[in-house]
Amino acid sequence: MHVDPQQIWQIMTGFQHSAAFKAAVELEVFTKIGEGNKTNAAIAEACGAAERGIRILTDTLTVIGLLNKSNGEYSLTDTSAAFLDKNSQTYLGSMVEFIMSPAQRRGFDDLTNAVRHGGSNIQGEASLDPESPMWVTFAKAMAPMMMGSAQMIPEHIGGDRDRKIKVLDIAAGHGIFGIMVAKAFPNAEIYALDWQNVLTVATENAAKFGVSDRHHLIPGSAFEADFGDDYDVVLVTNFLHHFDADTCTSFMAKVNRSLKSDGKAMTLEFVPNDDRVSPPAEALFSLVMLAATPAGDAYTFAELRAMMENAGFSRNEHIPLVPLPQHLIVSQK
Amino acid sequence: MHVDPQQIWQIMTGFQHSAAFKAAVELEVFTKIGEGNKTNAAIAEACGAAERGIRILTDTLTVIGLLNKSNGEYSLTDTSAAFLDKNSQTYLGSMVEFIMSPAQRRGFDDLTNAVRHGGSNIQGEASLDPESPMWVTFAKAMAPMMMGSAQMIPEHIGGDRDRKIKVLDIAAGHGIFGIMVAKAFPNAEIYALDWQNVLTVATENAAKFGVSDRHHLIPGSAFEADFGDDYDVVLVTNFLHHFDADTCTSFMAKVNRSLKSDGKAMTLEFVPNDDRVSPPAEALFSLVMLAATPAGDAYTFAELRAMMENAGFSRNEHIPLVPLPQHLIVSQK
Repeated sequence: MHVDPQQIWQIMTGFQHSAAFKAAVELEVFTKIGEGNKTNAAIAEACGAAERGIRILTDTLTVIGLLNKSNGEYSLTDTSAAFLDKNSQTYLGSMVEFIMSPAQRRGFDDLTNAVRHGGSNIQGEASLDPESPMWVTFAKAMAPMMMGSAQMIPEHIGGDRDRKIKVLDIAAGHGIFGIMVAKAFPNAEIYALDWQNVLTVATENAAKFGVSDRHHLIPGSAFEADFGDDYDVVLVTNFLHHFDADTCTSFMAKVNRSLKSDGKAMTLEFVPNDDRVSPPAEALFSLVMLAATPAGDAYTFAELRAMMENAGFSRNEHIPLVPLPQHLIVSQK
Repeated sequence: MHVDPQQIWQIMTGFQHSAAFKAAVELEVFTKIGEGNKTNAAIAEACGAAERGIRILTDTLTVIGLLNKSNGEYSLTDTSAAFLDKNSQTYLGSMVEFIMSPAQRRGFDDLTNAVRHGGSNIQGEASLDPESPMWVTFAKAMAPMMMGSAQMIPEHIGGDRDRKIKVLDIAAGHGIFGIMVAKAFPNAEIYALDWQNVLTVATENAAKFGVSDRHHLIPGSAFEADFGDDYDVVLVTNFLHHFDADTCTSFMAKVNRSLKSDGKAMTLEFVPNDDRVSPPAEALFSLVMLAATPAGDAYTFAELRAMMENAGFSRNEHIPLVPLPQHLIVSQK
């Protein structure tokens, strides 16, 4: 028998490490160290913060493995250099603005109630509210995080890259998924659907990636908006997990109706194994939905296939986007 | 070069795991599983919670290593059985009531500002406020966690166990430190000093351990109260870390004056090594003080010795209470 009180302590105080991480990103500690500031005095000056505060923060970041410390001087680890230094092409620090936003955290502050009632009953600026500002924050903060899976989707569309395709990007958010299809298929026309306030971010990104002329907007609720029809591809990315299975099924039936006979629905999700406790990142996503939504979930492939079949998709392929925790379900009529 | 985005994700989302842990303790999930409830349906009924909420919570606890899952049935790990089941003698779950209390968490919610200003400027019910209810919560929640170090202190007092000794227990809180001395020294008289509201908890514990007749109260501020004098032992447990070095020094001078010529000040602290990034638990405590106090810290032994020497203690011994993260400093004139 092996007992480890440190394991409990570490889990219980995890929120303290998250807070240190958030403070470091907000104060650009990693960026300033990457720019050559090595001592607490230099880092503090560069960050516009008190040396005592920086000293405690940099030591904490060292203990939790995000900095190295040697002879009183700090340096970035390979991981923090790649992802937390704003001068890195693969900077991911902005995701803290969404993942640790007050809107996201309050669901976890009230998690005991969500467990008791089987779902979150958060009111106001919640994930399912119309025009929720949460999704503007999401669209701005999470685009870099989504680039990996967005770049992997086009190869699964298949066919001649030069052909004309009509693509619907459901709950487009930052727009990156549709935009990456537009980049890979130079004659694709993208229709991005989301709340009007969120679409401003997608429009900015479409311009940034040079596809504005092929990027069209459908503002409104994905459940109420008229999609149009004859789509070759409908992207349903990180959307279904917010809803219960019946809602997902009727939504996918609407997607089905908007597709050409040989069209594909491409659903991106966190898909745990049937045991629901592996792989870790996929399995843990279920808790995020418990905290944030009334009835959302991380669905297994068996569950997703059942929804798709009930929605009229007879062929469903499961493609894990290794090494990412995201999975693609490609569905055809 | 090895980069690991999962490391960043895990630190950033640590607050989600803390929240799952807190919900599980509050709903007594571990206790109910320990009592034989194995399926989500049974656990949900025993906990008075929705099965869906429990299912997501138990799966999360499995992923983070606090439960086992096999064929849809859950069981406690050795660690969760020892420390998180209320039927265990070594139950530590109550500590979540203090460590994750709103009073503690708000300092971390505002950590960026604390780093910027070099200290917390939390107002109201803060750690240094008179009669702060925070310390009543602390006294109730943290007694089990302190039992280990409290039981290790008496052996370092030394001398005949039957002799009469007069012991001052500074910021007694739960009173456990003084009470354990009273248990080990049957003729010891304990004087417990703390805010009046906090001392009610110490008084309850003195009764529980059968030492009420030798447990006396000094209500008030440790800085302002008249200690009396001729003490053989003054216990200064987890107190100095709330204050800056000058305040600690003048406080220890007051302690010095209250001691007999051969008396001992016994200071319990989280004491990191001079590098300030090891051992991990001691080093990480500094962040807790940044979040919660204007100028507190986890002091190194070199810093503590300097305070003690300036306060008139010429002999200072450093005794790590292995395997706990707490260290004893025994100081004599």
